[in-house]
Amino acid sequence: MLKVAVIGTGFIGSVHAKNIAIHPGAQLISVCDASPEFAKRAAKATGAEAVTDAGQIFENKEVDAVLIATPTNTHVDYLKRASKAGKAIYCEKPIGLDYHEAEQAVEAVRIAGVPVMLGFNRRFDASHAAVKRAIEQGEVGKIEIVQLTSRGPQPPPIDYVKVSGGQMRDQTIHFFDLLRWLTNDEPIELYATGAALVSAAIGDAGDVDTSIVSLRMASGALCQIDSSRRAAYGYDERIEVFGSEGLAESRRQNFRGMALYKGRSIVEDGLHPGWFERIEQSYYAAFDAFVQSVNQGTIPRPSLEDGLKAQLIADAATESLKTGQPMKIV
Amino acid sequence: MLKVAVIGTGFIGSVHAKNIAIHPGAQLISVCDASPEFAKRAAKATGAEAVTDAGQIFENKEVDAVLIATPTNTHVDYLKRASKAGKAIYCEKPIGLDYHEAEQAVEAVRIAGVPVMLGFNRRFDASHAAVKRAIEQGEVGKIEIVQLTSRGPQPPPIDYVKVSGGQMRDQTIHFFDLLRWLTNDEPIELYATGAALVSAAIGDAGDVDTSIVSLRMASGALCQIDSSRRAAYGYDERIEVFGSEGLAESRRQNFRGMALYKGRSIVEDGLHPGWFERIEQSYYAAFDAFVQSVNQGTIPRPSLEDGLKAQLIADAATESLKTGQPMKIV
Amino acid sequence: MLKVAVIGTGFIGSVHAKNIAIHPGAQLISVCDASPEFAKRAAKATGAEAVTDAGQIFENKEVDAVLIATPTNTHVDYLKRASKAGKAIYCEKPIGLDYHEAEQAVEAVRIAGVPVMLGFNRRFDASHAAVKRAIEQGEVGKIEIVQLTSRGPQPPPIDYVKVSGGQMRDQTIHFFDLLRWLTNDEPIELYATGAALVSAAIGDAGDVDTSIVSLRMASGALCQIDSSRRAAYGYDERIEVFGSEGLAESRRQNFRGMALYKGRSIVEDGLHPGWFERIEQSYYAAFDAFVQSVNQGTIPRPSLEDGLKAQLIADAATESLKTGQPMKIV
Amino acid sequence: MLKVAVIGTGFIGSVHAKNIAIHPGAQLISVCDASPEFAKRAAKATGAEAVTDAGQIFENKEVDAVLIATPTNTHVDYLKRASKAGKAIYCEKPIGLDYHEAEQAVEAVRIAGVPVMLGFNRRFDASHAAVKRAIEQGEVGKIEIVQLTSRGPQPPPIDYVKVSGGQMRDQTIHFFDLLRWLTNDEPIELYATGAALVSAAIGDAGDVDTSIVSLRMASGALCQIDSSRRAAYGYDERIEVFGSEGLAESRRQNFRGMALYKGRSIVEDGLHPGWFERIEQSYYAAFDAFVQSVNQGTIPRPSLEDGLKAQLIADAATESLKTGQPMKIV
Repeated sequence: MLKVAVIGTGFIGSVHAKNIAIHPGAQLISVCDASPEFAKRAAKATGAEAVTDAGQIFENKEVDAVLIATPTNTHVDYLKRASKAGKAIYCEKPIGLDYHEAEQAVEAVRIAGVPVMLGFNRRFDASHAAVKRAIEQGEVGKIEIVQLTSRGPQPPPIDYVKVSGGQMRDQTIHFFDLLRWLTNDEPIELYATGAALVSAAIGDAGDVDTSIVSLRMASGALCQIDSSRRAAYGYDERIEVFGSEGLAESRRQNFRGMALYKGRSIVEDGLHPGWFERIEQSYYAAFDAFVQSVNQGTIPRPSLEDGLKAQLIADAATESLKTGQPMKIV
Repeated sequence: MLKVAVIGTGFIGSVHAKNIAIHPGAQLISVCDASPEFAKRAAKATGAEAVTDAGQIFENKEVDAVLIATPTNTHVDYLKRASKAGKAIYCEKPIGLDYHEAEQAVEAVRIAGVPVMLGFNRRFDASHAAVKRAIEQGEVGKIEIVQLTSRGPQPPPIDYVKVSGGQMRDQTIHFFDLLRWLTNDEPIELYATGAALVSAAIGDAGDVDTSIVSLRMASGALCQIDSSRRAAYGYDERIEVFGSEGLAESRRQNFRGMALYKGRSIVEDGLHPGWFERIEQSYYAAFDAFVQSVNQGTIPRPSLEDGLKAQLIADAATESLKTGQPMKIV
Repeated sequence: MLKVAVIGTGFIGSVHAKNIAIHPGAQLISVCDASPEFAKRAAKATGAEAVTDAGQIFENKEVDAVLIATPTNTHVDYLKRASKAGKAIYCEKPIGLDYHEAEQAVEAVRIAGVPVMLGFNRRFDASHAAVKRAIEQGEVGKIEIVQLTSRGPQPPPIDYVKVSGGQMRDQTIHFFDLLRWLTNDEPIELYATGAALVSAAIGDAGDVDTSIVSLRMASGALCQIDSSRRAAYGYDERIEVFGSEGLAESRRQNFRGMALYKGRSIVEDGLHPGWFERIEQSYYAAFDAFVQSVNQGTIPRPSLEDGLKAQLIADAATESLKTGQPMKIV
Repeated sequence: MLKVAVIGTGFIGSVHAKNIAIHPGAQLISVCDASPEFAKRAAKATGAEAVTDAGQIFENKEVDAVLIATPTNTHVDYLKRASKAGKAIYCEKPIGLDYHEAEQAVEAVRIAGVPVMLGFNRRFDASHAAVKRAIEQGEVGKIEIVQLTSRGPQPPPIDYVKVSGGQMRDQTIHFFDLLRWLTNDEPIELYATGAALVSAAIGDAGDVDTSIVSLRMASGALCQIDSSRRAAYGYDERIEVFGSEGLAESRRQNFRGMALYKGRSIVEDGLHPGWFERIEQSYYAAFDAFVQSVNQGTIPRPSLEDGLKAQLIADAATESLKTGQPMKIV
């Protein structure tokens, strides 16, 4: 039984806390939030103890593992302290706001030798994972074209956008990680173009809300990613991996299974209303993988290194957006 | 090159005439209709000779085969005369209005020994045929439940309904044939119930426009057929064959491939507007099978005997509708 | 906050206990099972108190509502005792093994005046409920044909089959309830035919494992239900409601959204592996409706009377299977 | 009745000849090919007169319109001669091998004032046209992202590739035209990258067989086009237009409607085996639009100018492939 504490009980931390509470191989010991109200609410929903100082968790010998779900600017500090305390760590993405800072966290973790998993949970979506399996089984052959789509449903608050690092680092980064994972390959060059077509405020903040990125992989494979902060039809996420032997797809999914046939049309239920409904299941699956990995002593994936590499790609894409020029990824 | 004449150039006779004209293994010699205007129009569209007396065709030594597409009450007479003249015959369904009369035609053809194919063209629909192939390859295993659907789009004119022999003999008969063909089995008992839910005039004529038929097969398999003369969303034809190893389906098909994602819905193009658009392709495929069969000296299927058996089932279903009782099929 | 106790913590009782534990408007007080081990396991998973005597629950003033998930032969007794104790009741279907006994329970509940909901949870499946809404909004028009399908995935243990009352009362009864609910209409006559095509042991026990039922409704609408205890491709549940204005469908649903395009085929993820995966969500939604109903003082539906009516139809269908004759439902 | 002659009776010229022969508003007068054998074969299939010298057609006063389906290097000469002879012209794409030469043809046609339509037949695909209509009706809102896919099924013969002008000018050009037509907008900048992943011979010839192109439109909308010369699953063509109000899609289409449910999978019929099966219907629809346009005296679209603009984009994309740099389109 893995004894776990959650640090940060905002929206996604609370999701994690509930998943840990119902996981048969884990026990939720404490939930920690700087806000006593947030901590208490999460404690009440899960039966765990509420604390407001993360230090109590790091000092608690009973705690085997911590799940970090605090704001990004605190991740590196908590990674360092938790690893020094010898805890196994599940850390929400991204590692940090700054590549240099992120490297320091990676180094600290390496020295401490604790297992760390980075929360690129989309790898654990059942449909995406089935695509990955098909690729590994050779069903697709040699990969030639990858298409990734991430749209909507609504732009985040402008205050969030301003500190997010931009669309590449905040939204598209998930798909840079998926690309690396699906292909078992690295992008070597990219070209990005975009615009603020949805929200003038996003444009004024120097960011884009609609973008396309072309990438060339070391193997020669090509990739297209399109990202939009708004979709008028719910949350739209889609994967296509096209190769010499066939095409594997993680499809658009209807939220429910109702269809109405009338006149010259068939009206089906639409997509999931939001990103969370679409990928909710993957949070549990990701945590489950973490538990298994810690129990079996294997290295958890996605790792901090995976996080660093995705950050590098996002930086290059941000630079390409700015300069209008293709960028090497090094 | 098979030299063919078409007798009857109404809607479906004209379809056949055009198919024969473009078939690389056939040559359309004559088109015959009691109406000189109809005959001429068909002749103009195909480049064939127009005649108004079928006798000219039976006497024409150049003609190898005739395609009979005249009203049902003339089929038996033409079948007798064409077989006596030694012509290969493709005859539109049904054989005749009357089972006794139909048996006489079958007998005449047997004596003459000419190849005859009955126009149950749905057997040649590409999707239905793929279901049949899957069954023959064992993909479905032992058949347990068959579901057949035939709906719409609009009731035929009431004058047509009155002489049609009723919904079982006119519409559902195609599916009695499909059932025998798909299962390679015979129904031994059935129960039918129905009503005139769409058109009071059809009810006044003693017929139904909406019906369901339950059938038990010699093998023990069960079958459900639902038929409606009206569908508010185009023509709806569907096959399901469920067995010990799996399910084979000939799906509802979208007429085109457009989809619109908006709000909480996905609006797709609907079904084919009418039965002809849905199964148009099967007419050519059926005629092509006839040509190949005549050329290779094999027995064309569906045969006249297939037609007789379907008629027997339709008669039992009509009787069940009337009596409200299950009927043995003998 | 509704304080709830669960009586019976086998598979489905445990599902309910977990749903109650995470419901924000409910609090799980006790879990009760004759087996101390079962009771303890459920208590541990939910944080509730474990008891082995249901009497303790009925006497506990703190408990507002009980959820009965024990074997069918105990339902009537618990319904009587719980209603006498003034508890609101959520009772798993069916009411009892015997129609007469069931009527007694209905009477006892009526006298006590407590709110009771019967666990026909399929009414709360999101897709089925969307079909119901479409009908109520007039999208389908006047209902003409209903098709219901329930197949697989595996026959229950033969010991269960022997005490289940037969396929009609155990499996198809859910669809008799759905039919009444979807159409807001009552069946007046039916014809059922079936066979033991899957399991000889089921046939030896005097039951069928594959069946079709034709029903005629008071409004004139027709209905077909096909049921199978085995499907080689997972659990297959499907609803079609066809009317004068269109067709509403609760579709077959893929378990995941992966597709593989290779050669002449597209291989998609199949259906849900079992019935539970397919309708799991409806258990929570049903309990949620119960909580709302109790809080708002409205009459919970499906009611015990709904349960009685479904039982009546199942009895008639069982009789029709036996006699081979159509049966009036009175 | 429009009297038409076809010049060039290779594969696509023969398709056109048959469509003209069955069009009720057109009459096929002559078919012309430098090869007497080709001309005769087409004449036999359609009942038209065979000629081997296009001059005879230009001099034939009976001929109202010519359809040019000869090799690309002859188009400009025939366009000039046919327009001088006052014929209406339907010309297969592209206008010519060379932009300068193409401009001369456009100029000659402008002076002659004859109606000319360029054979970008994909605009007449029923599903693509439905997407266009949805856009015009405002269903998509302001266009933000366009995705176009064209893959397979097999690379053309290397000799064809060598004279084709490259993938951009030969394959992707259709999609440059679709992009302009769908958006009613012009691309102003593009970036293309590609490789010979399928065929080393294509690489040796200095061409690519797999490519992605990013385009920015004057309105700010973004577009991605991926093209492959090979798909292991038939011919794959797909359109997505994403805008502020919704998404319109011309979907992948199954060739037939068969599905097989087995174990954990659903196996559906795959895509069309080749590009011709997928877009065959559009050739007739395009010719029909030409006939209507000539009869009504409206300007046929796509026009020669549309052809010139697509050629300009293809040239820029070819240059971007070569230089690895984004290119302005001017």
